[in-house]
Order: sequence, then structure tokens, then C-alpha cells
Amino acid sequence: MPMRRLDASAPDFDARLRALTAWEEEYDQAVNTAVQGIIADVASRGDAALLEYTARFDALEVSAAAQLEVPQARLAAALEAIPAEARAALETAAARIREYHQHQLQESWRYTDAAGNLLGQQITALSSAGIYVPGGKASYPSSVLMNALPAQVAGVEQIVMVVPAPHGELNELVLAAAHIAGVHRVFTIGGAQAVAALAYGTQSVPAVDKIVGPGNIYVATAKRMVFGRVGIDMIAGPSEILVICDGSTDPDWVAMDLFSQAEHDENAQSILLCPDADYLDAVAASIERLLPTMERADIIRASLTGRGAMILTASLADAVAISNRLAPEHLELSVQDPEALLPTIRHAGAIFMGPWTSEALGDYCAGPNHVLPTAGSARFFSPLGVYDFQKRSSVIMCSDAGVQALGKVASTLARGESLTAHARAAELRLKD
Amino acid sequence: MPMRRLDASAPDFDARLRALTAWEEEYDQAVNTAVQGIIADVASRGDAALLEYTARFDALEVSAAAQLEVPQARLAAALEAIPAEARAALETAAARIREYHQHQLQESWRYTDAAGNLLGQQITALSSAGIYVPGGKASYPSSVLMNALPAQVAGVEQIVMVVPAPHGELNELVLAAAHIAGVHRVFTIGGAQAVAALAYGTQSVPAVDKIVGPGNIYVATAKRMVFGRVGIDMIAGPSEILVICDGSTDPDWVAMDLFSQAEHDENAQSILLCPDADYLDAVAASIERLLPTMERADIIRASLTGRGAMILTASLADAVAISNRLAPEHLELSVQDPEALLPTIRHAGAIFMGPWTSEALGDYCAGPNHVLPTAGSARFFSPLGVYDFQKRSSVIMCSDAGVQALGKVASTLARGESLTAHARAAELRLKD
Repeated sequence: MPMRRLDASAPDFDARLRALTAWEEEYDQAVNTAVQGIIADVASRGDAALLEYTARFDALEVSAAAQLEVPQARLAAALEAIPAEARAALETAAARIREYHQHQLQESWRYTDAAGNLLGQQITALSSAGIYVPGGKASYPSSVLMNALPAQVAGVEQIVMVVPAPHGELNELVLAAAHIAGVHRVFTIGGAQAVAALAYGTQSVPAVDKIVGPGNIYVATAKRMVFGRVGIDMIAGPSEILVICDGSTDPDWVAMDLFSQAEHDENAQSILLCPDADYLDAVAASIERLLPTMERADIIRASLTGRGAMILTASLADAVAISNRLAPEHLELSVQDPEALLPTIRHAGAIFMGPWTSEALGDYCAGPNHVLPTAGSARFFSPLGVYDFQKRSSVIMCSDAGVQALGKVASTLARGESLTAHARAAELRLKD
Repeated sequence: MPMRRLDASAPDFDARLRALTAWEEEYDQAVNTAVQGIIADVASRGDAALLEYTARFDALEVSAAAQLEVPQARLAAALEAIPAEARAALETAAARIREYHQHQLQESWRYTDAAGNLLGQQITALSSAGIYVPGGKASYPSSVLMNALPAQVAGVEQIVMVVPAPHGELNELVLAAAHIAGVHRVFTIGGAQAVAALAYGTQSVPAVDKIVGPGNIYVATAKRMVFGRVGIDMIAGPSEILVICDGSTDPDWVAMDLFSQAEHDENAQSILLCPDADYLDAVAASIERLLPTMERADIIRASLTGRGAMILTASLADAVAISNRLAPEHLELSVQDPEALLPTIRHAGAIFMGPWTSEALGDYCAGPNHVLPTAGSARFFSPLGVYDFQKRSSVIMCSDAGVQALGKVASTLARGESLTAHARAAELRLKD
């Protein structure tokens, strides 16, 4: 029986839950020093450094940086070459993701105050964005769609994708997805050197305004270091799911949903909350029966044993309270009346309502983004979205009359802060 | 004559502009190491470490951490004690800031697709936020309003302000502003130790979900290091203004607006762009005449000489193109028809339109926030706003019928990524 069982009413429950869900990204001084060196090197030597690191870390040797770019024609060829079913699925997913994200577009607004001053906010798209796509086994076409389409919907003019190609190997589905998502340029680079190239620019790789997408500890460290010079999205930890059940969902469905998180890697976390102990037994039985049939059984078992839990709660409300404390990346409300619970959910990356809504649908094609805040950071981060690729400018236009009221207030406050040039700039516009 | 003169048509203009506006926050290994140690120490020893650092860095010795908290009654007393004119100005500014920021509130939304699946986005406020307010001379009541009011409008339940009190000195206007802005708790701590306390919590200081507000290099470094554990706002550099003139604004007004940025500190940057050389001469004359009359003349002169510039452009469109390249924090369109230029502005923190709209009004009381992206980061950062204190959760509810179309697409894509538990979770919900 892989999953530990906890009782939310036990005296040591809080401590056990904290220990189970603690995820502190280790601060690794060696990684830090290495990444700092790579960034400085790429920033100063450009393509030459990029070629060296790509040869050393990705075993990809090319004689000129131009060979690191994947031409648009190659992306189009990949789309033609993949199986028709895969192409249709990617195109359906892309259409649904695009439609959902269009709802996130922000509009400029303005109003005029009683004194005749115009106030507003102007929304514009970022000019350019860099999309980091992991290479090798974890190179997922769905992640290309999820990272690039919000940028495309926002109107970003230059979407630059980087994807490492270890030994020159590229995933055809990833290239096809890049074509569908309207990626403008693709480079086969990865690691901290790719982040550095996107942040500083090289002779071949254009500097971008923001870098998004998941990566290993080197990529995450590099992103944190270039933050401020460019924008970045969130810092991603292992994936997690929290399922709240009222006991009415087919236990096999719930078991499989827990598996679908656990199969990502050993550090992934699957947690089930239910006020019905018999139902927890039923899901445990489903897990026992289904686990041996899974292709990634070893990873799933390691994840469920190491980080999984079934928690008996006093009620559904108790389950929601625990969920709000954890702020899960994925939250399934596998209950008959999910609408009743929704308003009580304070912190979650994505909320999957009702028994039909398996989290896997959200990972691929429901429409919402699958790049979501992990490790409790849904308390303050949002899913990746169009808003990540738009920014705002405040707009103020004072009228001749309107400035008279404001000027005195500004002058008083500025003098209170001993900023007299500020005060006098306001006073110069006053009529008396 | 303090300000250098550049000609945008000169062959070396691009290089000179780049050199003038380059601002690379120096990466200081000593600061990094010190901040890392302080954070680890406060995270592990809590209040005891906080008391030691506060005694060492702020010369504020107290015997118990509880003495570092400023009671609400003390804030109320400060509001009663300050001059009536200051109080009225703070209250007017707060009301205007609140009104503007209410326009930024985001609403939850949902829609149903053709297959009957519900899709949406639920907006919730952060539960808690930390506001960093610098101490000593740069302790500004206006910054308290600008940082705390967006959090209050968003509905943050716990707004925690930290402000160092060197030798125990506190600014009464700052305390009064905290009361007006509805700050829930105030602690007299600062530096990296205050950021660490807000990120990790101590016995006395509650951990918060996001930390905002400007600070010195120690504060900025600490914020970058705790990013991911908590949210942070932007990384602030020196303040800047860029003024585009058509030659019709009173040169004294423009000179004073340039001063009002320059008086912040020697690294502040004031740039004037105009297609009319005679007008640049007129502003230069105003500067010569007015500068000796300024209280902070030395700082202003150092800033204008070191980092200021007057740039002759070919046209207003040319000026806008240069402005878009720099992405200024503050942009004044001091022209007769600013509406004509507005749609061409791609990157700017705040846009001040027309001759009446001095930037100083925006710093205090026009309504928009004065915490703005600097050093070109308006290319990807936005002004501090209500959106910084709200987050989004994706919402998905598939119907029995709706899941049938989605399930096959998800299954195909998941199998393409070898994530078979994902595929089977989708397939289990299929009817055939």
C-alpha cells in the first residue's frame, strides 16, 4: 500500500502535513557560482561562449552560431511529417487554448474626474518574449503551446523559443507545436547559457524582454539572476495535485488522477482528501489493482510512497480549509456539487470541478494554461497567461482648471518630504 | 551649463545614448554573501536574530521583539498630531489614489463552450502583503500610500509594514499615512533582516505572501533571494524622467520638472527631447537661472551633469522613437496635442500628457501609482497596482457530454508525450 494515511483530527496532523508538503528548493552555492560564470561569459563573449557551452553541456557541436537556429521551413516540415491524428490533436488543443486566453486580454481604460483631469491606463504588449522548452525526454509539445500561445494572443511581435537538442536530437512534435503556436524563431540551445543569451542577446540570438518556461535548477537559477534585466515568470517546483472527494466519484478515476500527477517524477505530490474513510479504502484498493498495469509504475510508486497522502477530514469544509493552507497547483473538486465549494477556495493554481473533469484535460486541451504555481505559491502567483505578456502604463492629463486643486495638495506633501523641486513644479502651474 | 547636449542625427548618437542611459546594477558578491547569511539566520533563529541585526544596523536596541511593533493607537495619535494641512493633503491624496486603483480591480469571468464545458478564471486577493518603507531621510509618507492602498483596494486581509527606525527615530507623517492607508501592523525593522522576517516569519513578525516597496541594495538583494518563496514587485533602480517638448511649454516649467527628478539623488536621470534647438536653449537658460535658487541645488547639479541630457530630435516622431527605445519610468508629453502621440508610446511607466501635467502631481495625488518600473524595465514591468495583490485560479468544469470530445484529444497528446496515466485518466471518462 503506497500512500500514507493521515487523520486531520489527529493531534500531530499539522506537523505531519507540514513535513509532508515542505519543499524548500535547496540553495546550492556551486550551482550559483557556475551559473553566474556562464551568464557573465555569454554576456561578454556572446556566440563564442554559447557555442562552447552548447558543445560541452548538450554534446552539440556546430561550427557557426547560425547553425543553432531552426529555420521556419523546418518547423513547417515537422508539422507535415507528424501523424495526422497528432496534428489534429495539437491543432484542436491550440484552438481551445487560444480561445480561453483571449478572455484574458486586458483593455485600456480612462475616466475624467470631477475637476476635468483625465486618468487612465494604457495596455501594450511586450515587444519580445523568450520561451524556454526543456529538451530530451521532458520535451513536451503541450508546453510549447501553453508558453507560446499566451504571448501570441497578447500580440508579442517576436517570440523566441529555445530548446536544447542533446546530441542534435529534436522532438518533431515540439517543432510542429512551435509552428502551430506562431513561434517566430527557434534556437537549439538550453541551460543557463540559453537564459543568458535571451537576457543579454548575442550576435545571433536576440535579447528579449521576458523569459518564461520551466527548466532544471541551472535554468531556474539563471532566470532568478537575470530577473530585473528581463521579466521572468514563476519559479517552478515539482508538480502537485490535491483531490477533494465527497465519496461519489468512481474510485478508479480518482486513482488514475493521482497517478497522472505522480508519473511526472518521484518528487511530484498527490494528495487525496475525503471525509469518508471507506471511500479512502476503495481508492486504495483501486491503486493496488491499477498500479501494476501502469507503464511508469516505478515512478508512480516512488512518488506516492515518498510524497503522497490520503487524508481523512471531518467534512468537506475541513478538506477545503486544508487545501487553502496548501494552495495546491492542481485542485480537483471531485464532488457532486462543486459550485457550492468554489467560492470557498482561496488559493489554487487551477480548479477542476466535478467528477468528469480530470486534471489531464487541463494539461492538454481544455483551454486554461498548464503552467501553474507550485509549492504553495498559488498564494501569490497566477497561471501563466496573456497578462504575463502585456504591461500597463499610467496615463494622466490634467486640465488647466483641474491642476489647481491637485497642485496645492502635491505642494503640501512634497514640502513635507523636503522635495522642494517637486513642490515648485506643482506651484508653477497654479494661477494664484 | 550642467546638461550635455546631444543631436539625434549625429553618427555617434546611438552609442552616446546607450552609454548615458546604461544602468547595470552592480553585482556585489560581498553584499550577496552578507544578505544570504542574514536571511538564513533570521529564518532559523527568528526574533533573536532580528533583534541583533536591528541593534547592529539601525542602532535600535530593544529588549523584546514586541517592542519593535508600533501599536495602532500610536498610528492614530500620529494622524491627530500632524498639522491639519498635512493631514488634509494626505487624506485627499489617499482618496484619489483609492479611486484610481479601484479601476484596476479584476473580475472573475466564465463562459461555456459549444460542448457544454464551463471555463473561467476566479480572482482572489492575496491573504497578506508586506510593505517595505525606507527609513531615515528617504522615509516618504507618499510611498506608504502608494504601496499600501493598492493592497487595501485588492482586499488583502493582513498588510504588514516594515520601516527602519534608526536610533528609534520615526517619521510622524509616515505613521499617519499608514493609519490612513489601513495598514494592519507596523514593525520598526529594516534591511535584509526585515525582508527575511516577512518572508519566513518570526515569533513576532508574521510571514506574508508578497513583499513590495523600494529599498537599498541590501533590501533589493534580499527580495531577489526570497523570490519564489514569496512574491515580490519589481527591482527598482534610480528614478528617471524623459520630457518630450514641442517647444510650446513655458521653459521654466520644463526646467523645474527636470529638477524634480534630479533632486532625488545624483544617479537620477532627466532627459529632454525636442525638435527645436532654440527651445532647448531657452530651457537651458531657465535652468541656469533657477538652479541657484533650489534647496537641493548640489544634488540637482550633480544629477543633471552626470546623467542628464538635452537631445535635439528631427521631429516629435523621432523623439517618440527614442523614448520607446529607453522605456522611461516617467514620460512627459509636454506638447499641444498629446493625444496624437499617445497611441505611438510603446513603453513607459507613467505618461504625463500636456503642459499642465507636471510629473510631481503623479508622485503625490493625481491617483496613479508612483512605484514605477525604472532602467528600461517598463518594457516588461507595470506600475505597482491592485493586480499585484490579486491572483487568478483557472476554473474548468466538464460536462458528461463535453468531456467526450476533449478526452480523445488529451489522450492522443498524452500518449505522444509517453504520459500514459494522463492518457488513461482521460480515457476512463470516455463512453465508448
